Amino acid sequence: MSNSGPEIEQLIQLLARLPGLGPRSARRAVLHLIKKKDQLMIPLSAALDRAVAAVVICEVCGNVDTRSPCGICSDPRRAESGLLIVVEDVADLWALERAGVGAVRYHVLGGVLSPLDGVGPEDLSLDALVSRAPQFSEVVLAVNATVEGQTTAHYITDRLAGTGVKVSRLAHGVPVGGELDYLDEGTLSQALKARTAL
Amino acid sequence: MSNSGPEIEQLIQLLARLPGLGPRSARRAVLHLIKKKDQLMIPLSAALDRAVAAVVICEVCGNVDTRSPCGICSDPRRAESGLLIVVEDVADLWALERAGVGAVRYHVLGGVLSPLDGVGPEDLSLDALVSRAPQFSEVVLAVNATVEGQTTAHYITDRLAGTGVKVSRLAHGVPVGGELDYLDEGTLSQALKARTAL
Ligand SMILES: [Zn+2]
Ligand SMILES: [Zn+2]
Repeated sequence: MSNSGPEIEQLIQLLARLPGLGPRSARRAVLHLIKKKDQLMIPLSAALDRAVAAVVICEVCGNVDTRSPCGICSDPRRAESGLLIVVEDVADLWALERAGVGAVRYHVLGGVLSPLDGVGPEDLSLDALVSRAPQFSEVVLAVNATVEGQTTAHYITDRLAGTGVKVSRLAHGVPVGGELDYLDEGTLSQALKARTAL
Repeated sequence: MSNSGPEIEQLIQLLARLPGLGPRSARRAVLHLIKKKDQLMIPLSAALDRAVAAVVICEVCGNVDTRSPCGICSDPRRAESGLLIVVEDVADLWALERAGVGAVRYHVLGGVLSPLDGVGPEDLSLDALVSRAPQFSEVVLAVNATVEGQTTAHYITDRLAGTGVKVSRLAHGVPVGGELDYLDEGTLSQALKARTAL
């Protein structure tokens, strides 16, 4: 590809590192961008510049936003339900927001416990969760229905036992072995409504 | 997604318009970019800026490069074989270059004839091809083995009949109904070596 110039080659290599894109689809994407230079490539370049400048991680909950505390943490109506929903990552928070689960707050763990991958309690935002939990009437563990997710849920339940806060998990409705972000919105809503005490 | 800020939402919407990405994979890609801000998001933003500024379409052959005439059209060694390879789009040119087909030149049609899609001869760079062809000893039609591709090949053969230039097509080796850009490099090389006169 040396004939296309280093600018194009580098763009292909960077796009190929995005999840869901490989070298071939990255080449197709770059050609598509070049064909749609005014309608897509230049707007994407500008949007990426703006996002780089604007995006921050919320220091309270771990959400991605353009301010910290994020819009969810700053919204006083979000406190009324008293629900704090614990998720593995921001994609799951977005999935629950798309499902319209209501005026709740979130806590993004940043992963799940996974000894095989070297992920221990100190790698997740667990201390922050224990600190926040007493401000809520109920903590809902919305972790994936995987082995690691359920191990993490047990660990969090133990950590929160001393705080007196009620802990629940999403109802079964989440398919065993399935990942939250793949579910349809109705299933997610039902699973939250039918959550069970731990 | 209104809670994530317009910068993030707009970035998702633009990425979702790339081939191979939908809304869900675009959201995953944006979260991945944000997680890898220094290693991936900022370099990608810079690479896109540079590509927007640098990329041009070669006015001779239709290739994508950072100069016009492109590196292939400017390279005098590329003239020695006397071969002009006609392709539908730049992805096919790149596929042939990756296959190492040798010191050849290319002509990018910008598509294939497709009456159903409203693509007629005037929509492809056919006049430019007819003008260029007499400079070469042989024109190789490396269009996809689809109905539209073969229709286009027949049309080009007719148009070039008056020029006296030899016209060939890639050997069968290209699977019938298959697309060039999906083939492995060995198959592409073999198909060029075994090209047949029309
Ligand atoms: Zn927040
Ligand atoms: Zn050129």
